[in-house]
Formats: sequence, structure tokens, C-alpha cells
Amino acid sequence: MSKPLNIGMIGYGFMGRAHSNAYRKVNNFFDLAYHPVLKAVCARDEAKAREFAQRWGYESVETDWRKIVERKDIDAVDICVPNNLHKEISIACARAGKMVLCEKPLSMDTAEGEEMCAAVEQAGVPNMVWYNYRRVPAVTMARKLIEEGRLGRIFHYRAQFLQDWTISTDLPQGGTALWRLDAAAAGSGVTGDLLAHCIDTALWLNGSIDNVTAMTETFIKERKHNLTGKVEKVGIDDACAFLARFQNGSLAIFESTRYARGHKALYTFEINGEKASIRWDLHDLHRLEYFDHRDESKLRAWRSIHVTDHGGEHPYMDKWWVPGLQIGYEHSFVHQVADFLDALAKGVPAEPTFRSALETQKVCDAVLKSAASGQWVSVR
Amino acid sequence: MSKPLNIGMIGYGFMGRAHSNAYRKVNNFFDLAYHPVLKAVCARDEAKAREFAQRWGYESVETDWRKIVERKDIDAVDICVPNNLHKEISIACARAGKMVLCEKPLSMDTAEGEEMCAAVEQAGVPNMVWYNYRRVPAVTMARKLIEEGRLGRIFHYRAQFLQDWTISTDLPQGGTALWRLDAAAAGSGVTGDLLAHCIDTALWLNGSIDNVTAMTETFIKERKHNLTGKVEKVGIDDACAFLARFQNGSLAIFESTRYARGHKALYTFEINGEKASIRWDLHDLHRLEYFDHRDESKLRAWRSIHVTDHGGEHPYMDKWWVPGLQIGYEHSFVHQVADFLDALAKGVPAEPTFRSALETQKVCDAVLKSAASGQWVSVR
Amino acid sequence: MSKPLNIGMIGYGFMGRAHSNAYRKVNNFFDLAYHPVLKAVCARDEAKAREFAQRWGYESVETDWRKIVERKDIDAVDICVPNNLHKEISIACARAGKMVLCEKPLSMDTAEGEEMCAAVEQAGVPNMVWYNYRRVPAVTMARKLIEEGRLGRIFHYRAQFLQDWTISTDLPQGGTALWRLDAAAAGSGVTGDLLAHCIDTALWLNGSIDNVTAMTETFIKERKHNLTGKVEKVGIDDACAFLARFQNGSLAIFESTRYARGHKALYTFEINGEKASIRWDLHDLHRLEYFDHRDESKLRAWRSIHVTDHGGEHPYMDKWWVPGLQIGYEHSFVHQVADFLDALAKGVPAEPTFRSALETQKVCDAVLKSAASGQWVSVR
Amino acid sequence: MSKPLNIGMIGYGFMGRAHSNAYRKVNNFFDLAYHPVLKAVCARDEAKAREFAQRWGYESVETDWRKIVERKDIDAVDICVPNNLHKEISIACARAGKMVLCEKPLSMDTAEGEEMCAAVEQAGVPNMVWYNYRRVPAVTMARKLIEEGRLGRIFHYRAQFLQDWTISTDLPQGGTALWRLDAAAAGSGVTGDLLAHCIDTALWLNGSIDNVTAMTETFIKERKHNLTGKVEKVGIDDACAFLARFQNGSLAIFESTRYARGHKALYTFEINGEKASIRWDLHDLHRLEYFDHRDESKLRAWRSIHVTDHGGEHPYMDKWWVPGLQIGYEHSFVHQVADFLDALAKGVPAEPTFRSALETQKVCDAVLKSAASGQWVSVR
Repeated sequence: MSKPLNIGMIGYGFMGRAHSNAYRKVNNFFDLAYHPVLKAVCARDEAKAREFAQRWGYESVETDWRKIVERKDIDAVDICVPNNLHKEISIACARAGKMVLCEKPLSMDTAEGEEMCAAVEQAGVPNMVWYNYRRVPAVTMARKLIEEGRLGRIFHYRAQFLQDWTISTDLPQGGTALWRLDAAAAGSGVTGDLLAHCIDTALWLNGSIDNVTAMTETFIKERKHNLTGKVEKVGIDDACAFLARFQNGSLAIFESTRYARGHKALYTFEINGEKASIRWDLHDLHRLEYFDHRDESKLRAWRSIHVTDHGGEHPYMDKWWVPGLQIGYEHSFVHQVADFLDALAKGVPAEPTFRSALETQKVCDAVLKSAASGQWVSVR
Repeated sequence: MSKPLNIGMIGYGFMGRAHSNAYRKVNNFFDLAYHPVLKAVCARDEAKAREFAQRWGYESVETDWRKIVERKDIDAVDICVPNNLHKEISIACARAGKMVLCEKPLSMDTAEGEEMCAAVEQAGVPNMVWYNYRRVPAVTMARKLIEEGRLGRIFHYRAQFLQDWTISTDLPQGGTALWRLDAAAAGSGVTGDLLAHCIDTALWLNGSIDNVTAMTETFIKERKHNLTGKVEKVGIDDACAFLARFQNGSLAIFESTRYARGHKALYTFEINGEKASIRWDLHDLHRLEYFDHRDESKLRAWRSIHVTDHGGEHPYMDKWWVPGLQIGYEHSFVHQVADFLDALAKGVPAEPTFRSALETQKVCDAVLKSAASGQWVSVR
Repeated sequence: MSKPLNIGMIGYGFMGRAHSNAYRKVNNFFDLAYHPVLKAVCARDEAKAREFAQRWGYESVETDWRKIVERKDIDAVDICVPNNLHKEISIACARAGKMVLCEKPLSMDTAEGEEMCAAVEQAGVPNMVWYNYRRVPAVTMARKLIEEGRLGRIFHYRAQFLQDWTISTDLPQGGTALWRLDAAAAGSGVTGDLLAHCIDTALWLNGSIDNVTAMTETFIKERKHNLTGKVEKVGIDDACAFLARFQNGSLAIFESTRYARGHKALYTFEINGEKASIRWDLHDLHRLEYFDHRDESKLRAWRSIHVTDHGGEHPYMDKWWVPGLQIGYEHSFVHQVADFLDALAKGVPAEPTFRSALETQKVCDAVLKSAASGQWVSVR
Repeated sequence: MSKPLNIGMIGYGFMGRAHSNAYRKVNNFFDLAYHPVLKAVCARDEAKAREFAQRWGYESVETDWRKIVERKDIDAVDICVPNNLHKEISIACARAGKMVLCEKPLSMDTAEGEEMCAAVEQAGVPNMVWYNYRRVPAVTMARKLIEEGRLGRIFHYRAQFLQDWTISTDLPQGGTALWRLDAAAAGSGVTGDLLAHCIDTALWLNGSIDNVTAMTETFIKERKHNLTGKVEKVGIDDACAFLARFQNGSLAIFESTRYARGHKALYTFEINGEKASIRWDLHDLHRLEYFDHRDESKLRAWRSIHVTDHGGEHPYMDKWWVPGLQIGYEHSFVHQVADFLDALAKGVPAEPTFRSALETQKVCDAVLKSAASGQWVSVR
């Protein structure tokens, strides 16, 4: 029999839903030593908290996040609120001895992140940041192929995260659903929201980044602010691109924007190694493309691997349906919960920890600093 | 507050899992007048029933399906057992006044299906067959585009369902996981298992089929039988292809096989109309390809629609995540449960009913008859 | 120094252009013992013949094809006129000791084809039919992969040739550019024009066909005839589909139509073998897709081979540009001329000979007979 | 009757072949006031010149390029020699009153290019640089769509040119076929060879570039030099990436490398505008992908336009075969010759002129300067 792990959820937005769904499903598909129990959800608006609790099966509601942190019947706190609240809540959780599962990006900046790392490490509480794309089976398999040394020396890494949802000048900034457009709540625009994903994956697959040179742009300079009701200067970056050099000698290009007409959530990466190359994109997340130069020459080609096979070769897929039947976005979160619970049982950290996620924060800071100065900036 | 609908599940295999997952998730995402309650699961092997109940949250177990039918606390029975048991259980359910949700194909043949239809209609119980692919959003959208008259007169329909999992001669037939290879349990091979899906979708999208000419083949003639332990003649069709004429004058080709190396579950269809064409495949089920001749001539092209947008235009997708993030195979079942519960609240039939699914059975029968005789066979 | 081969071209339409281009280019790219000399072109309309000769560099013109056959300074006659003239001209050429290069299909029917084969064989003149798609590098490579035994036992063959250019009811039939719509000139519709290509490739790749069952349809029953000026019954098949069994035990589906909205010249084929599968399509003719089950299991996938590499592995490609740069439709004709000239130098037949092309004619005849009778028809 | 234009070709390598083929074919397909006459080819090695002349039909040979420039019977000189010879030959041609068709890049650097522009402009001779990719029909159509205002305000431009042919350390540098790897002959590595193509197209499609920040890398630092026979330091850039800002406010990323395993000649670009986006790649050069936000919302999608249609809508395609049949790489040169001859007849410049190509040179210089300094560099 598995042991309960009592969850306190703070926040009820897009990520609150994605995580709740993962907690509910994980034990249907994975055999684990723990099972999450949805103990409480917290939202400032009690009616919304109740509605969310009812829908997802949370046993109780709170309207002050400090109550969640104080409750004795809660083992782990899941932080799904805007970025500017991550630090305070995480540190309070750590001090209260709670495990912390924090939405990405870890923090508003590196300085905050350092404090958060110190807090969870001093408290010795399990901690994790929700960089869910590591657990898309095709992405996990990319990592395995690299670990197996199949790519050889790496020459190039490129990643992009392209969206098109903020092109209209009529879109306001700030407030409940739009806090990602408010620099005060989000810290930055696409850099923290989207490039952070690209960077987390890149560091995981290709090691450390040494230095960067970046440019950012805010295409629409003023928008009505939903909280003040006034037209205000937009503080976030609408687009950001940077060149980078990795410690392993490879060159990289990263780009993100919310102004790429025709792309909804096109997160892509490609890695070119001496012996083989890999590429992936989120719009067809169940596929991994792979080119291996060691193949017989006349048959050399990009392979479009439908990462749905069983037998343990395609990560996580044995747990789901039958070969050929695809899973979707939400399953990356289920996998992350499964890995967290598995790590908990084994007494090992679940990646990415706060400390690992801090590396992404450092790159983001260097990127924004470079964009402001026009200079190459060292990450360290 | 939504009302409970108490479910009794008979069977615990692949489909038992897919349906259970759908029952558990549907109310997290859809606002409905009913919510399924997982009352009991039935399996002959009590240990397996208990394990399944534990994993999926069923309140109780039974080892005799008749108990499920008799239980007063069960409103609806879900039949997830081999095809040769569909008739008896369905009719018992109908007589007991239970709603029946039966896995596809409806029956072993048309004659059985007629009895089943008569039973549920006489009893007046809601009934549905799990042709889940109708509820893949891209497929549902195909239907809407056709209903809107966008294709004009239809000239061609083609569908295929290609797999490659039975190529090895070492694979036995019959028994728990392999009853689909046993003619006594399955009735037929790919015709009832795979072509039935193609036919159901085709009838839904393109109307009735008049007549067919078919060929079938059993590539591996003998296999060890798991139940008897002996090498026995294989009774199922490994592959089946047929030509057809629809009532609307269009020509059709259908094909299915489990010997198409490289394809795991490649269900595809394409419809060519006077004004527009549509195609879809299950390996990238979140996409619908569409060609419209009315487009400006130099821009005419196949569009690959990423059916993940919100605003009500892409069926069901508003309920899930954000635009650009794909769902998978399992969601088609969630949609079917949602539609069933919605139809229940409205007091209307949920499609496909037994009566609708009987039409597919008739085509299957004609196909098998034609394959045996070498003649064109009329469906009616 | 290469030797001249004097060409007499009969016809000046689409194929006249494609062949002339091939004759002019072949020695720029291939090192051959012969070089074609464009001696004369023949058209009934002298002005058109002169214009064509001027454009393509033919030295002289004729207005009666018999003159071409009689001319001493012509070695080889290229027949690019409607199908109903193939027999008479071919036989006259053979009797005059000319080599014959005849556009496909060989003849109006098998009986005509038999006479033509007898004539060229009795005369001992080199002869070839322009089934050009064999010489698309990706198709030639498919053949090599099969010859190397990579596919193992073949289970399935499927081919289609889909177009959409005759959907309008306003299109007339007959006359210069539209003789393909006139049964009297073309013999049949898509069967001889398009399926003949599919069948030629199939026989080359997969061996003989035993029997077929077919259906044909003429969607638009009457069209204005360009020669008579009257609305007349349409005699050709607009669409044709058939099931077939090959001698090697594989099952096949063939389909062709000019009513598949969205497809201009979508010739595709796919072969499923026990060990590997292959597919190709004319809309991206420089790619060959290949799946090999012997690949390491987690990397098994369809490969999209860009058939543009050098080193002799990708057929014909060494002769062209550099790896990665694609060639197009016209190059298949250049390759066929190169192979014809090479065979001539070696004193061996250039495939497909009239005799080889007669096999396609037999299948076409069986298909049309089956479509008329509704019965399975044996090819032999 | 068209007038002769006597061509003198200097060089006989890859580009010498591509241009000769274009000269030979252009009048077969295009109706023009001029027809090229292959008067002479020049190579230092007389045997090679004779072989080339024989193969392509040049009437005579020279072994000193100055002879070509001096010959009275030559109207236009085509320069297909390494970059370090472009200036001297071009200026000599201009002074001799010859038209000049120069391979790209125009020159070793901007300073050389300025001299060349001054020379041809002072002499008033027609001049053109062979940036052939502008004349791929899909690329020409991209330009038309932009001219028609379909994209609206441009936000992003990205281009890459990826190859993998120099990964082996065994590959020498310098000498006949490998001068592109020798900085003394080529000026730079991928910047002048590959990025120059990307930049030319970008300037044509999206206007001027204001400033750039770049990085370059030479992965393999030493190679045997074919001319000296010694292992020498590699002077070229193996890879180059840069960020840029266009005058129209759009952001751009450019990248090129010869170390991207799996890509032979993957030149791609994508443009994101407020209303529509476009993308293209050289590996499937007959397709243009297009997304239009003004499409009906549920049908919004990337369209893969098969740019092979007739009726004048798909640039140049009316001249070739029938809809659906693709052309290849070589046809871009045929189109460029056709446009040059057409411009000549009209007495207007044929783009890109030396002056237009100088703009690309300026960007290349800024890129290399930025890569050396680590600073943003203004193009002007």
C-alpha cells in the first residue's frame, strides 16, 4: 500500500489545473510508494477556491497562503502563483518544514533564487521546480541518447519558443489571467516565461552556458493596465533572442517571442553533434527527429520517431496505452509527479531542484543584462 | 450540483482502463449535470478485480457479471469484454433496465446486433457503442466542415487502419491479452477490430454504403493457441481490403492489416469533394489537413490545422489547456463520456447508439461475405 | 568521341517537349558512347512543327509521320502522339528497321500490344516505352533496396495517382490538348493514362499480378467534344480503383482519379515487407521514405531520405549538382535517355521494352474487364 | 527572331556548369529577345577547358582570362572563379565594355565591391550577381506576397544555411575543388559562401539591416593545405551566427555552419508579420509555407503550397511542365538568365546588380567585424 502525501495547492490558474490533474492521475498509471492527497487549495477569492476544490476534489480551502504553510496536515506545498510571490512563499514553506514544488521560473531574479535555495537547503526539505518539458518522453529520450554518447562532440544548439497571442494592441496587461504581461508580477516577459523553458532543457541536455549576447524588444509600448485601468508603459520584453557559447565549445542561438504569427506554442530545439543530430518540437511533442551519420550511407536520413513504443525503450510510455497512441501536454506533469514521488521514496532529490533551476535564472539575468548593455555577458 | 451516475464496469483490460480514466477525468474538465461514480468492477479473477478497483477507485468488485446486472446501486453497465460476450450481457442489462455502454464492435455479426438493438429499444434504456474516434477533435471538426457543406459533392472516400504487431510467427493466439487473434472470441480479425472503426467514421461522415467487394488474407496460417496449448489454424483475417460505393455516388477504398511494417496504429481517412478535401491520421491525431479549392488560386494548398485552438471553434478544446498544446488518444473517451452524460441530461440518444453501430456491423458482414465469395455484395 | 544517334520525333506536345529536353541535356551530364542528334520533328501542322523545331533545335520538319519512318538519316523514332496511333507507327518503324521509343501506354489494348511486340522483335530493333518514373532516383533506389532483399517477404503494395483537373463540367473532351479525355484517342481514362504508371512501377518492384477486381466511374457523363462541337457521352473512366493479388502472395490496392481535389499529380506507392517498408510520392519526388524493423528498437522510425547524395549510392545523383540540391520531374527522362544510350552501346535491351510494357497492358485490360463485369479477373 | 548574346565563361567548376546549363536551356522554355551563344570558356588548364567546351558546346577555349575580356566577339563575361579574382576581372570587363555576370559573393570585402560598382557604373555596362535563390519560384512568390502587403508590419526574420560537409578533420583546405575552405581565395568561410545568400534574400524581402552582433567559430583549427602540402592554420569561419535589427523595426537571427550533421544544403527563412507569416527551405524548394491570420479562425493553419501551378500565379512555372510536377535547383539559374535577357531587351538593370549585391557585402563585413570585436556594429 502506498503512503499518502498531503498536498496544499496555492493558486488555481492554468498551472493549478495542470498540477491537480497530474496528482489525480499519477497513481492510476504508475506504481509508486506515495499517493498525493489533495488536502487544500488556497485562493484569495473564497468562492473561486471553493469552485476549484469542488472540481478537483480538494478537501478544504484557504484564502491566506500562510494558512496552508501552517497546517499540520499538509506535507508538500505547490506554488502556482505569479513569480513575484515565489520567494516569500517558498521560504516560509522551507521554514515550516514543508516540501516545496514551485512553478517556473524559480524567482524574479538570481538574487531571490539564491535566498530560496539557501532556505530549502538549510531546512533540508525536498524541493522541485516545474520545468515539465524535461518529462515529455521524446525530450527524456533525447537526454538518454546524449548520455549514451551518440551525438559525439556537440557543435550547435538552437532553441526557440514562438507564440503569437499578444499581437493585438487591444490586449490589456496585468490582472488575473494576464499577470504574465505585467513586469511587476512576472519579472520579465518572454525571457522568464518562455526562454526559461528553453534554457532549462538546454542546460540539462548540453551543460553550462558561459556567456551570451542578447537583444530584446517591446513591440507594443503601451497597454491598458487591468489593475489600474490606465494606459501604462509595457515593462516586459515581447521578444528576446540571444547568442551563447556553451562550456563544451558549442555555439547556440535562443529565441522567444509572442509575435510570431502562426505559432501557438512552438517550443523547438535542435542539437548538432559530430556523429548525430536531434530535434524536437512541442507542436508534435510525441515525435523525436534523429539523424545518425553512422547509418549506412545511402539510408542516412532524419528519422521521425513516434515515441509511443513499449518495452521500456520509450520513456514513460509503457505506463500508458498501446504503441502508436499518443499522449499529450498534460502527461509531462504526470511524469514529473511520478518522478518526484519516486525520488521521495528513494530519498534522493527530484530534478530540477531549486539549485538546478537557479542556473536557468542566472542565464536569464545575463540575457537581460546583455540586452540592456549591448555587451557579451558572462553567466558566472 | 451534478447528479451521480453509478457505473458497473465489466472487464479490466485495455478498454477498461481507457473508460475508467475517462469517467474519472470528465468532471474535472466538463461542466455536466451528471458525474460518474465508479461503483463496481467485475472480473472472473477476484485478485485482478481487486487490483483494478484499487488502482482506479472502484468501490467494490464482482466476479460474475450477472451480479453487476442485478445490483440495484448500478445505473449503467460498461461492457469491456471480448466480442462474443457482448450480446448476452447487453440483453441482460436491457432487461434489467440498465443503461448499456458497449465496446465496439457491437456484436459478432448482424444477427446478434439486431437482437441487441431490439432489446435496448424495447427496454428503452440509453445505449451507446464506444466508437471513440468520432470524438477526436479533428475528426469531430471534419464532420462539422462536411455538415456546413464545404466539400460539395463527394467523389472519393478512402480509409486505412495499419498495424504491424502480429508479423512474428511466434505470437500465439487466444487467451487474456490476445483474444483479438482468436476467431471464437473476436468474430473476425482486422475487419471487426480495425475496419469497424474506419466504417463507423465513414458512415458518420459520408452516409450509407451500398455495396462492396473485398479480399481478406491470413498470412500466418497456424499459431499456438494460448488456451489449448496446441498449434491451431488461425481463423481470423490478418488483412482485409475492400472497394465500396456509397449511396451519395462516391467511390471508396478501405484497407486494414496487422502486417504493415512501420505502422503502429495508423488510422487514416481522406475525403475528396468537389470543392474541398479533408484528411486525418491517428498518428498525429491533433491535426486536420484541409484543402479548399475556393481559396485564392496562388495560395491554394493543404493546410495542416493544429486543432488546439479555443473560442469554441475547435471541438472540445476549450475544456483543456491553452492553444498549441495537444491532447492525446485518451481524450477521445473523455469526450464520449461527456457527450453521453450531456445527452442523458437532455433525454436524447448518445451517438453512436446500438442502432447506429448496427450499420457498421452490416458493412462488416457484407465485406466478409464478399471476401468469401469473390462477388460484389449489397449491404442491405 | 561519342557517336551520333539521329532522332526523329513524332509529336510536339507535353511529351515531345519532355523528351526533347532530355535528348539535349543528356550528354552535358552523362558520359556516353552515343549522343542524340535532333534530326527532324513531325507534326501535321507545318507552322507548329517549324516553331517546335526552332525552339528545340531540330534540323528539319515533316508533316507526315511516314516520311520520318522512311528517312535514311534517322536512326530512332520517338512516338509522342495519342495512343490510338502507337501501333501503326511502331510497326512501320520496326519494318523500316528504326529503333522505337514509344510513349506510354504501349497501346490501346493487349491485342494491339502483342502485334507491336511481334513487330519490333521480328525486326530486332531496340525498343523502349517511356515509363519514366522508374528513373526517378528515389524510385530506382527503392528497386535496389528490394533487390538487396531488405524488405523480406512482401505483404502489401499500394499505389495511387490522384489528380483534380477534370472536375469542372465546362471542360470539353477531345482535340489537341485534351485527347486524353477522348476514349477514341486514349483508349481509356485514368486506367491507361495514370494507373499504367502505377502498374509499371509495381510490376518492376513487386513482380507479376495474378488477378484483380476493379470499379470505374465516369462522374461527368457528357461533355462538349472539341472535334465535333457537340455535347457527347464521355467514354473514358474518370476514376478507377482495384484490388489485386500478386504472384508473391502480397495484397494490393491501386487507385487513380482526376477528381481528388487538392492533388495535382500525386503518384504514391508504399510497400510493406516483413522486415522493412518503403514509400514514395511524386509531389516530393526527391525523397524516399524507409522504415527498417532491424533498426535498434528505440530508434525505429520512418526515415525521410533526401535522395541527393553523391558517391554512387543515390542513383544518378553523382551526375548532377552537389548533395542536398534537388532535381525535378524532367530529370527522369534524362536518365531514361542515358540508360537507353548506355544499353545501346552494350547491345542489351533498355527497360521497359515493348514486351515488358505489354505486361502493364494486360493488367489494364483485366482491370477494365473486371470493372465491366464485377468479377475478379485473372491477368493471364 | 531573337538576337545572339555571346558569352565568355571564365571558370569551369560547379558554377560554371550551373550557368552553362542555364544558358543552353533558357530559350527552350522562355520566349526572349536574346539567346545566349556559348562563345568561349576560359581555364588555365587547356585540357580541362577543352573538355568543358566539348561537353557544354562552347565554340572555343582560352587559358588566360584577359583574352576573354579582349575578344571582340564576346558580349558578356561570366565570372565563375574564386572570390579573390572577382575584382580584377570585373573591372577589366567593365573597362572593355563587356557586360559582367559575377558569381556571388560580389567581392572579398566592401572596399573591393565599391571599386567594382564604380567600374561597371562608370562604364555603363549591364551587370548582375548570381544570387540565384531569388529566382526559386517559391522565393519569388514570397516576395510578391510581401509586396502585396499581406504580411503587414514585420516583427521577425530568421534564416539559416546549414551544411555538414567539413566535419571530418581529414578534409584538406585550398586548391581546385576546396578553395572555399581557403581564406586567401574565399575571403571568409560560411559568411561569404552561405550567409551571403541568406542576407541577399533578406535584404530583398525585408529591406535594410541597421546593425548586428555576431559570433564565429572555427571548430577545426588546422588542416592540411592542398597547395602547400603543409598543415596550416584554418583562416575561415566554420560557423557564424548573428542577431540583427532591420530598419523596419523587425528583429532577426541568421546562422550558418558546415557542422550541422544531417543537413546538406538546408537554407531556410521565415518571416513573421502582423497578419501573416512565410517560411521556405531549400531541401523542398518547390514548396512555400504560408500562414494567414485573416483566414477563418477554425481553418487557420500553415499551408504547404506546392508552387507548381500554372496560369501565371506561381512565378515562372507556366514555362515548365504541368501542375504538380516539380522543378529543381538548376532552374533558379535558368530563371536568372531569362530575367537578365529580358532586362537587357528592356534596357533596365537586372537585379541584383553589383550595387545591390554590395549591400550584402556591407552586412558581411559588419558581421565579421562584430565577431572579432564582440560589439554591436552598424552596417552603415
